[in-house]
Amino acid sequence: MIVDIHGHYTTAPQALWDWRKKQSSGGRPLPLKISDDQIRESLEGAQLKLQRSRGTDVTFFSPRASTMEHHVGTPEISLEWTRLSNDLIHRCCSLYPRNFVPVCQLPQSPGVEPKHCISELERCVSEMGFVGLNLNPDPSGGHWRDPPLTDRWWYPVYEKMVELDVPAMVHVSSSCNPNFHATGAHYINADTTAFMQFLTSDLFKDFPTLRFVIPHGGGGVPYHWGRYRGLAQDMKRPPLKELLLKNVFFDTCVYHQPGIDLMLKVIPAENILFASEMVGAVRGIDPETGQYYDDTKRYVEAAAISAADRQKIFEGNARRVYPRWTPH
Amino acid sequence: MIVDIHGHYTTAPQALWDWRKKQSSGGRPLPLKISDDQIRESLEGAQLKLQRSRGTDVTFFSPRASTMEHHVGTPEISLEWTRLSNDLIHRCCSLYPRNFVPVCQLPQSPGVEPKHCISELERCVSEMGFVGLNLNPDPSGGHWRDPPLTDRWWYPVYEKMVELDVPAMVHVSSSCNPNFHATGAHYINADTTAFMQFLTSDLFKDFPTLRFVIPHGGGGVPYHWGRYRGLAQDMKRPPLKELLLKNVFFDTCVYHQPGIDLMLKVIPAENILFASEMVGAVRGIDPETGQYYDDTKRYVEAAAISAADRQKIFEGNARRVYPRWTPH
Repeated sequence: MIVDIHGHYTTAPQALWDWRKKQSSGGRPLPLKISDDQIRESLEGAQLKLQRSRGTDVTFFSPRASTMEHHVGTPEISLEWTRLSNDLIHRCCSLYPRNFVPVCQLPQSPGVEPKHCISELERCVSEMGFVGLNLNPDPSGGHWRDPPLTDRWWYPVYEKMVELDVPAMVHVSSSCNPNFHATGAHYINADTTAFMQFLTSDLFKDFPTLRFVIPHGGGGVPYHWGRYRGLAQDMKRPPLKELLLKNVFFDTCVYHQPGIDLMLKVIPAENILFASEMVGAVRGIDPETGQYYDDTKRYVEAAAISAADRQKIFEGNARRVYPRWTPH
Repeated sequence: MIVDIHGHYTTAPQALWDWRKKQSSGGRPLPLKISDDQIRESLEGAQLKLQRSRGTDVTFFSPRASTMEHHVGTPEISLEWTRLSNDLIHRCCSLYPRNFVPVCQLPQSPGVEPKHCISELERCVSEMGFVGLNLNPDPSGGHWRDPPLTDRWWYPVYEKMVELDVPAMVHVSSSCNPNFHATGAHYINADTTAFMQFLTSDLFKDFPTLRFVIPHGGGGVPYHWGRYRGLAQDMKRPPLKELLLKNVFFDTCVYHQPGIDLMLKVIPAENILFASEMVGAVRGIDPETGQYYDDTKRYVEAAAISAADRQKIFEGNARRVYPRWTPH
């Protein structure tokens, strides 16, 4: 079985984006009307088609990351949009329970304590069967004004995550800072930033079973694995494996063979989860290979690893990191 | 000949840091007194010893990056500190003209137009023989409040760089944003950010001979080379090689063999310049190899590349990118 733990509903019907546009500009949109057929149509020609053609079985599916936009509007706006977005994910997964498994966004808002997100997390997981969440380390959208992920500011969410036994993917939304291109800089920077926050903290002493997935191949981390091992060593921290690899995992959203090869060489197979982010940041076909850039299954299949490690990456680790997921 | 294009004076005598401490806290420090012997002592046991033991010949030498601290104090404070720092670099390089070649910092200050840095750049290059500069893309120290490097805000500096024929290394200083660890996150993020700014702009149409070195192996860029090729393609930009590889170069400050191997695989040899950043961010010995993490010469020597490419990386590209440098 091949489990893609990182997919967003980037292809939702236009009615959703129209609703959001009206809501975020201060208007009072009419109740959102999207039929089951419209949902089917939005998925059949995109994620489902790609699952079939690439031979993956199931996608952990969450709202579009760039439109979480926690920095837009009030906390109430964020909550309303989040609930709507999560409900729509739940509908997708209910229509295709074998193909999609729900992961939620949270109603974060810059400067607002994350504990206010707990009831929505609880609703999604306990009432609707969500198996994980996306946690935005920078709700300010590229201004990085809230405390680091290792601050007690975030602890109420972690307590709930531990209680519910769900992992968080560390995932920013779009950037309203003109310095940061969203998918080309802000996403990758956030991944690198979160890892270094974890490295310099004792968060996992406080929460030994807390689990984070750092997407996009861990940002810049595996490429600089020697740097991180060395920084930890200079700071008299324990070796990285002991310090955080029981709690921190990386996905395989790295869009070329040499990148995946590097990751598989330096990061233990136990810490890597297969993902493609399709349909996501990069949609084209690589002229060097004739295949989609984001068809990451090909890279993992072509890598020089054992069948046992490949099984962990494609399925085993997902079962361990997302224990609330059980295949249909 | 082996040219290390990225070294900082991290080992300057304590008197310098005492002076700066007094100055940056609003005091009026006495004139800085550091003897030639003190300078010799600060270098002999550190950078010079490592040059000899590792077999490198010359280091392009600039003030310590983390203490540029453009975010501290007024523009006048920044200017005074910058001139003092650059003068000290000039003394190091004059004492050891075969071992060190001077690269300057600029008197940047958040919110202040970069054109105010031109006279110090001119002084360093035209009067003191500096061959390059460090340009801080975020003088606010982790808050990213100034415009992107591709904004006209920066153009006067670029005009002067082109006129003087000197390249800039894109190098941030320390971070006063608690989200960003300096050497573990802010540095790497800035590298990635700058690359993506270049990718989305027409800066090099306006300045066809402008040259930037992105340090620390290009941040997260080579690891995500497929992502960047794909993003450019989706945006209908020209291929990266054509779009920016005549103007953008990467150094080899990546502290493990798999990282260097990846870089050498995906980035053309013409765009890679040897560097170690010693004595810098990571000072320990890697227990996996028994060698210093930052002894990057070993990685380049062990990589499966041609002798011709190795010569470009060790020396040839430095001559081309830093044409004002001529070996003693």
